[in-house]
Amino acid sequence: MRAYELILRKRDGGRLSADEIAWLIASYTNGEIPDYQASALLMAIFFRGLDDGELAAWTTAMLESGESLDLGDVPGIKVDKHSTGGVGDKASIPLVPLMIACGVPVPMIAGRGLGHTGGTVDKLEAIPGFRTDLDAAAFRRQLRELGGAIIGQTERLAPADRKLYALRDATATVESIPLIASSIMSKKLAEGCDALLLDVKVGTGAFMKDVASARLLAGTMIEIGARMGRKMGALLTRMDEPLGDAVGNALEVKESIDLLRGEGPADLLELTVELAAEMLVLGGVAPDVGQGRARVRDAIASGRGVEALARLVDAQGGDPRVVDDPAILPAAPRIVPIRAGRAGFVGGIRADEVGLAAVALGAGRSRKEDTIDPAVGFVLEKKVGDRVDAGESLGLAHVGGRPGDAAAVERVAAAFTIADEAPPRHPLILERMTR
Amino acid sequence: MRAYELILRKRDGGRLSADEIAWLIASYTNGEIPDYQASALLMAIFFRGLDDGELAAWTTAMLESGESLDLGDVPGIKVDKHSTGGVGDKASIPLVPLMIACGVPVPMIAGRGLGHTGGTVDKLEAIPGFRTDLDAAAFRRQLRELGGAIIGQTERLAPADRKLYALRDATATVESIPLIASSIMSKKLAEGCDALLLDVKVGTGAFMKDVASARLLAGTMIEIGARMGRKMGALLTRMDEPLGDAVGNALEVKESIDLLRGEGPADLLELTVELAAEMLVLGGVAPDVGQGRARVRDAIASGRGVEALARLVDAQGGDPRVVDDPAILPAAPRIVPIRAGRAGFVGGIRADEVGLAAVALGAGRSRKEDTIDPAVGFVLEKKVGDRVDAGESLGLAHVGGRPGDAAAVERVAAAFTIADEAPPRHPLILERMTR
Repeated sequence: MRAYELILRKRDGGRLSADEIAWLIASYTNGEIPDYQASALLMAIFFRGLDDGELAAWTTAMLESGESLDLGDVPGIKVDKHSTGGVGDKASIPLVPLMIACGVPVPMIAGRGLGHTGGTVDKLEAIPGFRTDLDAAAFRRQLRELGGAIIGQTERLAPADRKLYALRDATATVESIPLIASSIMSKKLAEGCDALLLDVKVGTGAFMKDVASARLLAGTMIEIGARMGRKMGALLTRMDEPLGDAVGNALEVKESIDLLRGEGPADLLELTVELAAEMLVLGGVAPDVGQGRARVRDAIASGRGVEALARLVDAQGGDPRVVDDPAILPAAPRIVPIRAGRAGFVGGIRADEVGLAAVALGAGRSRKEDTIDPAVGFVLEKKVGDRVDAGESLGLAHVGGRPGDAAAVERVAAAFTIADEAPPRHPLILERMTR
Repeated sequence: MRAYELILRKRDGGRLSADEIAWLIASYTNGEIPDYQASALLMAIFFRGLDDGELAAWTTAMLESGESLDLGDVPGIKVDKHSTGGVGDKASIPLVPLMIACGVPVPMIAGRGLGHTGGTVDKLEAIPGFRTDLDAAAFRRQLRELGGAIIGQTERLAPADRKLYALRDATATVESIPLIASSIMSKKLAEGCDALLLDVKVGTGAFMKDVASARLLAGTMIEIGARMGRKMGALLTRMDEPLGDAVGNALEVKESIDLLRGEGPADLLELTVELAAEMLVLGGVAPDVGQGRARVRDAIASGRGVEALARLVDAQGGDPRVVDDPAILPAAPRIVPIRAGRAGFVGGIRADEVGLAAVALGAGRSRKEDTIDPAVGFVLEKKVGDRVDAGESLGLAHVGGRPGDAAAVERVAAAFTIADEAPPRHPLILERMTR
């Protein structure tokens, strides 16, 4: 009866105590509370929300459902970054080496692709030999010795979140700001970072479609982190068109290498520099964002960034020659141009459509058991604001020969809006929040 | 994925089509949709509601999940009454014989006790030999030959409702007006009546605590019934103190017999006469409620009502001598007075508390598998507005010798508020609605 009473109270707008939340999460995780009661509670939370105290208790309970990494023996202020997910967002790949180069340790636990967005773990695994399944001891050792590591999520971190997420995914209770915030934060707090920078995406290609929701999500996560004694920062950044030009695992690794060589696309460079500068401030290495930017640009220009990527790849079992010779990455058998149907200006590129087309090519999973083709994807040659002629190439599709390839290429072409006039320019960085 | 999309749409305030609702109900009933998706949908409906079209489709789908009785071979306009449930509400027991006496056929499918409220089936089964498990053929035959029958719900009527109700009961999604309305109406429409009178209770002892909610529930049920071609009427009636004096199965049968002999308590008589008069109008036997009342009063005064009860009891296997000799009903071994703690006026009697105390004595079930003691319960001697002296008896507890009896008696005593002044009188019949 107790679960019933707590569902009833939340349904009617009441408050759950920390003890009650701890009991709910523990009892759901161990199977005492059935899925059908949990899903009713989740839907009630979707409508009623969780206040700051409930949210802290909910996050703590999920965190405490599993292990937490103790990084006490890794010197320095450990800073991580979390992105809420966008298409073509490979910023973590250049960011970790840049932090290594600048002396801020980054203990990053990254995800796999989800829905229309790719995952850092899938991308890095496109590098021959690269391993993301380091155990806790190896993770700590690499952090001490190299100053950065990127691994995949393990079953031991926040198992309550894993079980609840699967239920939310089946019951239309994913899109709840407190549930999203506590899910992200329970995993990030478990990895042992001291400070966390959030990149909250806003736009048609993002989970948060407007600035107000993104601000609310960022503020909610900042509140949770601050209550748990973490330094927190957030950037709200645009995610309407894909970030950078490449969408697809090996293609995004190559673009990350280009970026560290000073040859990356402008939007990806801007985002990477801003995120890196914020992380340097959070890590106590730069006194302000302006000086942070200068250090990051210097790390790129001096080659220390790309050199740190080689060391990172090497440390995690990958072939470090990739930074000099991206041709060792898997390559698709065919490259097909995506043609513009008419002349004009690119008015918009639906990032979610490009992401889903990439999944259709095999760059992501439609079902959990699907295998990924690391070679396939798209490299856009035109971005929003660019002029195009009729029949000109909007980008190249790297295809593997699947039956759906042609439809996916058409889908990407259809994701472009061609307008008569150039659209207004929007800033990439919309807002900064800190605590 | 389809269930997911429908949950999502309802969650976000969208509308489900009739086909989608039919698919949802059928797939949940046959087990294709799991409980955890159904409970999330129910909670979304709790918050978002169902519009008239959705509600009709939901009710139809539940109705069509099982059998419907065809009463085409029973002559006349068949009228039933449904009460949303109150404490001491035994009105169905005198009503059916009064309708038999006045020539309106009543095909009543009644329920068992639920929570703090008793059930007509449990009450009638206090009569030695009385059977409520007639099959459809016997039910039809009795309706043709006698003009009335009262049976229990069968597993064949609206099985979707049974499964959904059990889930709602475990997930705090019972208190939703469209879900309550469709649950009641799917069962009532399955029994084949042409017209239906609703007695929607309002007050501390009822599900609906205020007139506005009761009006909304009544209007919702009337809308469903009217869409399905039924004549509909509703009375909103007060349920703050118990109805009549008796609470408990055999005790309520005895009070019903008393009523048909012209010796019933005033409030129960008023309600019975009003309901019966409305049913006579719905059944086309009386042109208006005023003439309906006169006919009902005459059926009581002439003894035709109590005589019809004897025939009803006899037809359903019970001992018809009960109407002349209520002593053949089961009797409790001990009768204990309930004492007033102070002098004054009865300001209120919490019907829900009296109902729960009766359950504690054994008059109802705390768990589905509990057996009922038909003899136990309470007979109140004081009702709201009555003067009492300190130590005077407020009523008699008929107890069976269970360990919790003394506590239950105290609970009833505590359900009385004794005030210094007589409280204002409130009308029993709050509103009439028709369509």
